[in-house]
Amino acid sequence: MGNHFTQLKQRLGEVSDLDHATAVLSWDQETYMPEGSVAPRSEQLATLSKLSHAMFTAPATLRQLKAAAEETDTQKNAKNLAIVTVSRADYARARKLPADFVAEVSRTSSQAQHAWMDARKKSEFKLFAPWLRKNIELARRRADYLGYTDHPYDALLDQYEPGMKTSDVHRIFEELRVKTVPLIQQVAARSERVGDACIHQAFDKAAQERFGRHVAEVIGYDFKRGRVDYTTHPFCTTFGIDDVRITTRVDENFLNPYLFGVMHEVGHALYEQGIDHSYERTPLASGTSLGLHESQSRLWENLVGRSREFWQFMWPSLVTHFPQLAEAGVEDFYEAINKVEASLIRVEADELTYNMHIMVRFEMEVAMIEGNLKVKDIPEVWNQKYNDYLGIAPPNDALGCLQDTHWAGVGIGYFSTYSLGNIISAQLLESAERAMPTLRDDFLHGRFGPLLTWLRRNVHQHGRRFKPQELVKRVTGSTIDPTAYIAYLTTKYSELYELDHA
Amino acid sequence: MGNHFTQLKQRLGEVSDLDHATAVLSWDQETYMPEGSVAPRSEQLATLSKLSHAMFTAPATLRQLKAAAEETDTQKNAKNLAIVTVSRADYARARKLPADFVAEVSRTSSQAQHAWMDARKKSEFKLFAPWLRKNIELARRRADYLGYTDHPYDALLDQYEPGMKTSDVHRIFEELRVKTVPLIQQVAARSERVGDACIHQAFDKAAQERFGRHVAEVIGYDFKRGRVDYTTHPFCTTFGIDDVRITTRVDENFLNPYLFGVMHEVGHALYEQGIDHSYERTPLASGTSLGLHESQSRLWENLVGRSREFWQFMWPSLVTHFPQLAEAGVEDFYEAINKVEASLIRVEADELTYNMHIMVRFEMEVAMIEGNLKVKDIPEVWNQKYNDYLGIAPPNDALGCLQDTHWAGVGIGYFSTYSLGNIISAQLLESAERAMPTLRDDFLHGRFGPLLTWLRRNVHQHGRRFKPQELVKRVTGSTIDPTAYIAYLTTKYSELYELDHA
Repeated sequence: MGNHFTQLKQRLGEVSDLDHATAVLSWDQETYMPEGSVAPRSEQLATLSKLSHAMFTAPATLRQLKAAAEETDTQKNAKNLAIVTVSRADYARARKLPADFVAEVSRTSSQAQHAWMDARKKSEFKLFAPWLRKNIELARRRADYLGYTDHPYDALLDQYEPGMKTSDVHRIFEELRVKTVPLIQQVAARSERVGDACIHQAFDKAAQERFGRHVAEVIGYDFKRGRVDYTTHPFCTTFGIDDVRITTRVDENFLNPYLFGVMHEVGHALYEQGIDHSYERTPLASGTSLGLHESQSRLWENLVGRSREFWQFMWPSLVTHFPQLAEAGVEDFYEAINKVEASLIRVEADELTYNMHIMVRFEMEVAMIEGNLKVKDIPEVWNQKYNDYLGIAPPNDALGCLQDTHWAGVGIGYFSTYSLGNIISAQLLESAERAMPTLRDDFLHGRFGPLLTWLRRNVHQHGRRFKPQELVKRVTGSTIDPTAYIAYLTTKYSELYELDHA
Repeated sequence: MGNHFTQLKQRLGEVSDLDHATAVLSWDQETYMPEGSVAPRSEQLATLSKLSHAMFTAPATLRQLKAAAEETDTQKNAKNLAIVTVSRADYARARKLPADFVAEVSRTSSQAQHAWMDARKKSEFKLFAPWLRKNIELARRRADYLGYTDHPYDALLDQYEPGMKTSDVHRIFEELRVKTVPLIQQVAARSERVGDACIHQAFDKAAQERFGRHVAEVIGYDFKRGRVDYTTHPFCTTFGIDDVRITTRVDENFLNPYLFGVMHEVGHALYEQGIDHSYERTPLASGTSLGLHESQSRLWENLVGRSREFWQFMWPSLVTHFPQLAEAGVEDFYEAINKVEASLIRVEADELTYNMHIMVRFEMEVAMIEGNLKVKDIPEVWNQKYNDYLGIAPPNDALGCLQDTHWAGVGIGYFSTYSLGNIISAQLLESAERAMPTLRDDFLHGRFGPLLTWLRRNVHQHGRRFKPQELVKRVTGSTIDPTAYIAYLTTKYSELYELDHA
């Protein structure tokens, strides 16, 4: 390695150390921090972010980037080249946002968060409305700073899903909507086919913890480089490739939150634990987009974790941990965890209806940014769309447009990545099955190593080296496309609900 | 507040945020961090320390200190003046140690730590000897950088106990030794007087946790601004005045480690939780010396926590948590927790023999720094001193001169503060009893608030505003002096062991 590149890596490493320290302090805040320490912790987090931003956007970083670029150009080392290229793009983006604007966003978002929590508690959208107006204005200004060609929403989307356009998402979602709305309606007409009483029983907390840990280990989560804690809202967080932690929550009368929460977060964690160590302490040591990240969590949670093969293998262990399930049997259990039901809350939605929740939000966000949707009209439009897509309407704002935190923060542009993740997960699994025709049989025998190895080689190791569309194309031969996912949903739910066109 | 002072506080605040982030990452490393993450965590800690040191020792800090000093001089605000004065002294000290030297110390100490662990495991001093030679050399160089008038050891001691001289410690320890060695011998002759079988039984872990928490609350630890976790070596750590955490360990067949460990660490934590919030995010938000800190931990652990009054009050609760103690009765229990026995391991020593362990180390350290003790002779000298002071000799190095980590780190100069803490604790309690004649009666009725309030007002609130000798003099009318402590030990153990001169 040349001298310039070494210097650049030193600086990127220190920025990464600061960001990982921020992640540790945030994790501690959610898991173990005593309640009296909120104010000093906020100051610590603000200082770390400020120092990291100042160090990364310093003119010296640009000089080092340029010098390292010349050096790596001549060396033909693809990984080093990628580190310089991705860091330059990050630098350019970071420099586009003035420090004052970043501070204003951070301040507003913290206040808006409080207003949102209060509004949700009282179920009164109008308490949150002024903050949402402010956040939309900030999002528009952010789009202007970041720049765009076709649509201001492109700039917002690009933060989470680099290279993806608003028009792409419209097109993909339209295709998905056209194919799944009829499926949802057919399933609704036969809703009595599937019951889920067996997963709504008393489940001992310690047994849930033991079984959750077992499942995490079976699918490949490395507990020597991670751990599981409790938080109100589950998440996965990274303090380095060798320290990727997840959190979960538990319901002692419902099996799903802990079990599928763990599989979901483990999916994210496997991505981060699988990144090439050459990228440690560089901007590449992270998932390449939120969509790709979600593809990993949904693949393990749903495509594997809600498959018949998975539970045929796990059944003896499941029943050992929870003897109360023995009476139901594996087929009833499989049906119960896949029961479809139009519901109001996104995070509790089944696989089939989940994407409808996302489409509502995506369409509304685009209209907000375009100025075609006034904030005061949001509750009405929200309720109308729920009626159109899911056939149900929220009885109040708390169960409707106030349910998610994203609009209280700086999250406009984020939602569509959830459904893009679902779509990509099916494309990836289809490719993996093409490459390994015995994969389903592997699941049946508890062998998840081949799939993980395939994901490591094709997706995880690269970190942010490839942009999402480029990566999906390299692995599957196609850019992001809903065909495989629609086929997966159609086959699975036609069989489950004995629909005609199965 | 003037503009210069505000700017200074901003900078000191950011340095403090970095240091508290370091403390969070270190705490996490000891409590919850997965084992595979040692290397990246070391890099994160190194980066945070480096940035904190660079920010604090930057020339801009000196300019701000000088400007703020002029401003505060005219304002007559004693607290602000103290912030500037203490920060200037810290700055001057920090600038004395070259960055290369600090890096060398940190590197060597990390390697020496590994060598020490290996040597202790194998009980072979010679494996550690080369590293101790190196550490002594580094300590001498450190003394030269820091500067001293009378004795190089003064410079090392001053880091932990500002203002204290080697000759002061010699004088204080000599007085203590002369008075306690005969006491130890008399007690040894009547060792059959006191048994401790009742505290060596099976004690349920969850019950120990519940009772420990209860005791911590009773003596005033604020769990809204703190928490208790497990580590191999218990400690207290501060992430801000409103987040002071302790750790402990548990032995399911011995009551003391958890119970007295918690009281000890809570004593430290009460000090840090009690600092004036005006000092938050400044160098003053910490105990003023290790000796003063230890005076707080030992006061609550021993002077309160091993007193007859404390257990007369706590007895019903203790027996509720541990019914197996009912048979013993409170007097047997009081005797058991105060049993004196010459033993080899410092951290397990009783109140009376504890200081002998410290004197051995202090005398040897001074001789090492003077060049009057060769490293190769350490095991022999150690064993001889244990024989002289305690009448026992270690059967091997692991139970002898390899037992403590201090010489593997940068801790030469540290040990004497443990005994200074014991001495100060008795001076403080004597003063508190003079000010509040009903204090013992308060303990008997479970009222520990008056003592805590007195400590808050006289000691805790000031943080590092006053140097230790100045603080002890303000509060007790005398500088650090062993008279009160010797009287306490003599009275307590004469009564317990029914000695003649009681």
